[in-house]
Amino acid sequence: MTRIGPGDVLGILGGGQLGRMIAVEAARLGLVAHVYNDAPASPAFAVAARATHAGFADVEALAAFARGCAVVTYEFENVPVAAAETVARHAPLAPGVAALATAQDRLAEKRFVEGLGIPVAPFRAVDDEASLAAALADLGRPAILKTRRFGYDGKGQSTIRDGDDPAAAFAAVGRAPAVLEGVVPFAAEVSVVAARAADGSLAVYDLCENRHEGGILARTSVPASVAPRTEAAARDVVGRIAAALGYVGVLAVELFLVREGGRTDGEERLVVNEIAPRVHNSGHWTDIGAQTSQFEQHVRAVCGWPLGPATRRAERVTMDNLVGDAAERWRELLAEPGAHLTLYGKGEARPGRKMGHVTRLSGVARNPA
Amino acid sequence: MTRIGPGDVLGILGGGQLGRMIAVEAARLGLVAHVYNDAPASPAFAVAARATHAGFADVEALAAFARGCAVVTYEFENVPVAAAETVARHAPLAPGVAALATAQDRLAEKRFVEGLGIPVAPFRAVDDEASLAAALADLGRPAILKTRRFGYDGKGQSTIRDGDDPAAAFAAVGRAPAVLEGVVPFAAEVSVVAARAADGSLAVYDLCENRHEGGILARTSVPASVAPRTEAAARDVVGRIAAALGYVGVLAVELFLVREGGRTDGEERLVVNEIAPRVHNSGHWTDIGAQTSQFEQHVRAVCGWPLGPATRRAERVTMDNLVGDAAERWRELLAEPGAHLTLYGKGEARPGRKMGHVTRLSGVARNPA
Repeated sequence: MTRIGPGDVLGILGGGQLGRMIAVEAARLGLVAHVYNDAPASPAFAVAARATHAGFADVEALAAFARGCAVVTYEFENVPVAAAETVARHAPLAPGVAALATAQDRLAEKRFVEGLGIPVAPFRAVDDEASLAAALADLGRPAILKTRRFGYDGKGQSTIRDGDDPAAAFAAVGRAPAVLEGVVPFAAEVSVVAARAADGSLAVYDLCENRHEGGILARTSVPASVAPRTEAAARDVVGRIAAALGYVGVLAVELFLVREGGRTDGEERLVVNEIAPRVHNSGHWTDIGAQTSQFEQHVRAVCGWPLGPATRRAERVTMDNLVGDAAERWRELLAEPGAHLTLYGKGEARPGRKMGHVTRLSGVARNPA
Repeated sequence: MTRIGPGDVLGILGGGQLGRMIAVEAARLGLVAHVYNDAPASPAFAVAARATHAGFADVEALAAFARGCAVVTYEFENVPVAAAETVARHAPLAPGVAALATAQDRLAEKRFVEGLGIPVAPFRAVDDEASLAAALADLGRPAILKTRRFGYDGKGQSTIRDGDDPAAAFAAVGRAPAVLEGVVPFAAEVSVVAARAADGSLAVYDLCENRHEGGILARTSVPASVAPRTEAAARDVVGRIAAALGYVGVLAVELFLVREGGRTDGEERLVVNEIAPRVHNSGHWTDIGAQTSQFEQHVRAVCGWPLGPATRRAERVTMDNLVGDAAERWRELLAEPGAHLTLYGKGEARPGRKMGHVTRLSGVARNPA
């Protein structure tokens, strides 16, 4: 990778709120942000020095974009691999194509993680009704049928319980190539967000405890209520996954926390749910809650710059998503001392749409320096 | 003022680093930033959703700009009053024209502050060599001749010492209408940055202690090394000035700290140097050093939103300007744990040009919430 410095152009594939927050931090560090997205009114366009509105199948536009960038990154994992490959022919791409290809195929991802000796939920590939029947016989019910590709925020999923018709579940996911997963009886959902630099150095944020509502992240709390050895295990997991992918940038690993026997004092273990090869919603608390936000950290990593400290700024940090009309409370949130509001500049507050988030620090302040 | 909310357009007159940092915070709060400036490659353009490159005498362009904004603010005090008046005919302008007109005329400003019963350096109006001679006879030497208008960063000033030719000093400031100031034997230069909302509520940041090099701010340290009653006096000064101007937004008052008899234990008093009707370089430490940055605070105020807490996040905060080639140390600063770097995206590092700044928190962390 060529040596990148202030004044150089950082390209971002994708124009949502993640791209928006990356673009802002890129500008703060003196870079010129160039956002490429296929939707005309993309939140990231509003804060970027340059914007390209073109499709991800437009090879000419992708190549022209990449040729003008010192480095290119992506803000969502459903960038087509072919588009990423086109970009990578003309500019350094970080994270690389391999991370993208692995993360956007649920089956490949599970095999990859399992291959590292890291626990995942029991799974079977499903390509048709026959393989679904065989998978159900192996894993039992309930089980969750998930499309291999393009799932997010609980979309592309169907749970099969006793008495449910497997054919209906397969129809519900569009009869697309899928994975059947055994249900993990988790005590909590947690995630670990980390940055890996090109030199292999790693900066891991505190383990995040996540609460979902309707398949969408509602709240992240830090620190997670887990044993220190569980926190250490999560750090180990993200480090091994990042190293195996030769990863450069911020990534998140979503995990199930299982307590043996379902008891609150049961031995804890972690099961990988999925990998996100990008900055992650559960890392938004770092915007004011950590010494270096995940967005700045990602910019540092993909530019080949030193990583910043990932330490937490307060005893407790929470991040609440503002989904749908929850963002209409903005004035009330602005009036709340210590609530740090971020809105994504999206026009319409549709149900389930992430409109913003609010971060709150509490307890003893820590790590000023 | 109409009720302003996310999705509305905030107009910014001026496109330097102050406008850039205001635009970023406006976007973070869901606003659409529209920057108007007369220079083509303005730092603020790169982070704003909309940009107008036109002159401040272009009445049509100013009117069109203002008509598209829910509210307009300015980031430098040398916006021509006529331009501000044009804008104010088509959109709410905050701070108002009166604050701008007062602050951009050194003589009007001094008379205004003096009229409030707040100490200023002794001064006389200078319009020609005869009035300069009379002023020098009154105030003695050394004295500083300053142009009434368009001074910043020590520009437009000339010190007249024993033996100096007054005519040469008058020529050095372009024979422009000026003010002769008696030299205040200050122990330190301090500033107080505050936000005033339309409802009269005030949020005052901790008093800043400023060190200049070559007339340009080099470092701001917070808290200032002053007696508590001096800090209280500074808060009183900024509150009275803001109220008298009917001010809405962030303003800064630069002050000389004088210690009686020049002794380090001498009774402290404050003398107003000048007013800046805008976010201010000495307030940059608030970017990570205060619970609400001055940029967010300014956006809140001009939009008619509640002000945020102005409390400091750590025992000590310092902000160092990166002037000229000092910004070439960016990689070293990125590698320093806890140093928070901001670069302004300016192309060329000319001597005396502010290229960025770095904020550092130290000591005990405070006020997480």
